[in-house]
Amino acid sequence: MKVRRVLLVSRPRGVAQAENFAIEETELSPLAGGQIRVRNAFLSVEPAMRGWIADRGNYSVPVETGSVMRSLAVGEVVESNAAEFRPGEVVMGWFGWQDYADVAPSAVVRRVKEVDLPVSLALGVLGINGVTALIGLETIGDPKPGETVLVSTAAGAVGSAVGQIAKILGCRTVGVAGGADKTRLCREVFGYDVAIDYRAAGLSEAIAAACPGGANVYFDNTSGAISDAVWPRLAVGGRVVICGTASIPSWDPWPTGPRLERHLLVKRARAQGFVVFDYADRWETSVARLAGWVRAGKLRYVEDILDGIEACPDALAGLYRGENRGKRLIRLRR
Amino acid sequence: MKVRRVLLVSRPRGVAQAENFAIEETELSPLAGGQIRVRNAFLSVEPAMRGWIADRGNYSVPVETGSVMRSLAVGEVVESNAAEFRPGEVVMGWFGWQDYADVAPSAVVRRVKEVDLPVSLALGVLGINGVTALIGLETIGDPKPGETVLVSTAAGAVGSAVGQIAKILGCRTVGVAGGADKTRLCREVFGYDVAIDYRAAGLSEAIAAACPGGANVYFDNTSGAISDAVWPRLAVGGRVVICGTASIPSWDPWPTGPRLERHLLVKRARAQGFVVFDYADRWETSVARLAGWVRAGKLRYVEDILDGIEACPDALAGLYRGENRGKRLIRLRR
Repeated sequence: MKVRRVLLVSRPRGVAQAENFAIEETELSPLAGGQIRVRNAFLSVEPAMRGWIADRGNYSVPVETGSVMRSLAVGEVVESNAAEFRPGEVVMGWFGWQDYADVAPSAVVRRVKEVDLPVSLALGVLGINGVTALIGLETIGDPKPGETVLVSTAAGAVGSAVGQIAKILGCRTVGVAGGADKTRLCREVFGYDVAIDYRAAGLSEAIAAACPGGANVYFDNTSGAISDAVWPRLAVGGRVVICGTASIPSWDPWPTGPRLERHLLVKRARAQGFVVFDYADRWETSVARLAGWVRAGKLRYVEDILDGIEACPDALAGLYRGENRGKRLIRLRR
Repeated sequence: MKVRRVLLVSRPRGVAQAENFAIEETELSPLAGGQIRVRNAFLSVEPAMRGWIADRGNYSVPVETGSVMRSLAVGEVVESNAAEFRPGEVVMGWFGWQDYADVAPSAVVRRVKEVDLPVSLALGVLGINGVTALIGLETIGDPKPGETVLVSTAAGAVGSAVGQIAKILGCRTVGVAGGADKTRLCREVFGYDVAIDYRAAGLSEAIAAACPGGANVYFDNTSGAISDAVWPRLAVGGRVVICGTASIPSWDPWPTGPRLERHLLVKRARAQGFVVFDYADRWETSVARLAGWVRAGKLRYVEDILDGIEACPDALAGLYRGENRGKRLIRLRR
């Protein structure tokens, strides 16, 4: 049987573009001992992939050129040489950008138990994005009822969940997003109290007006100009969740920005980097809480689904061009 | 009776110089009801005074021009119209740069109980500096035995205590200080495992060599070039105590530096601003621990004593010129 796989063929400076990938068609080999074969239904496209591809200063082993692009995916076990999995089980894990994945059981992040909900959610609001939002917000952001939580990339897969969870926890929410479409999404779908378009003039003033007592929590996915406008508006005792740096096209050479130390000192603020894979022990309970909120209609999501593996090579670059609305996914079968 | 007081007469940009102060001689008025009169023995000179004088972005109400320079001091109650204090008691508090202070009891930070030790220590290793070192290191730095603790201004009043307390807590210590004299102090008096002269070439390489596994805790009093060399050497899970920004001459205009967000994210590091006055409830127990270490010879200190109130106006500028060795104090009487 023929299968198609997306290979990283060259290492980009900055964000990987379509030409850094190639689609290869090969014959499926027989399944090796101890492995399972997963037929992927949806592949994930994440901002963090930029870091997985980068060849320096990072929190994960770089994807090697010539190998299948690393990705979370959700699919069905179709064959198993491992005692702990049976054909028919729906699993989410490190299955890569390919039709079929032959992997060790350790590549499975979890069995998908929320069978009443769309399976694609296992990659978004019930997957890495929702879990990142919930654990990052609670452990580092530590929001208290009545506090103001400010979120960058507020309409994105992580940001939209952060904003809604902060509301569920009793906070005021301020979302920063790019363009009228996304700010409308922020207000109408994700329930932000205030949505600010960072592309419009007066970002700093808009943030000040939206946070009269300062931002108690800043959940940041951007770094760059948005953060430069937010940091001076932190409340005393503010907490900054450093979850992503989407606004910085490259860290080579290392970019400069306004020094943060004085803000941290004067505001007695705390900033901490967050990588969800450090919190594996909290994954299941987090998904259960998120699923409960989804079923109750309190946690909404938007998916940006591209059809077919041919969409993969340009999908990450498109994310950094800001063309997606909600969680970007590649659908391989309906 | 005549008394002399040091007034802030003009507001500097950056660090206050001698010409920003004037010494005034006046007649002591009769003590008002409810107040106490303290005869100051030692006045403190702190890097933080730069912030108390600044007219923007700060964590305390600015000292007004025309008023006595704000300062901690230690002295003896010589007259009391307040029930809770009696003449003869030794107190440390907000008594200002002056011979005598007529103040409300609320200006007293604490009664000095360590009467077996020099009274000047109440302003240094048993005062704001030692307490800052201990609480800042423990609450934000959270050092574990065997970890590497890196300290900037390592020979200074706060830094030297941080390094020694970290050793007491079982850590490896690396001190960064300016010049051969101070690095020698670091090694010979304060017991750092490694002392690095930031004025010598190869700071970044020296830090890397001193911290082969990265710095688990960075206790920073500087910001600027030293921090720029340290941040890339943080260990995964590193903690940064932001205690001062002595290397930055002015925050107007706001200076730029290498962006910290990526370091925070990749290293899952935490940075937090520390202002000791937020921890008033821990002051007494902290002083008791520090005094125990001083008596046991485990916590050493160096004092840089200037004689007479005439030394006040230039004392702060001199601190920023780096001319002091250890805690700078003004002695008014022996």
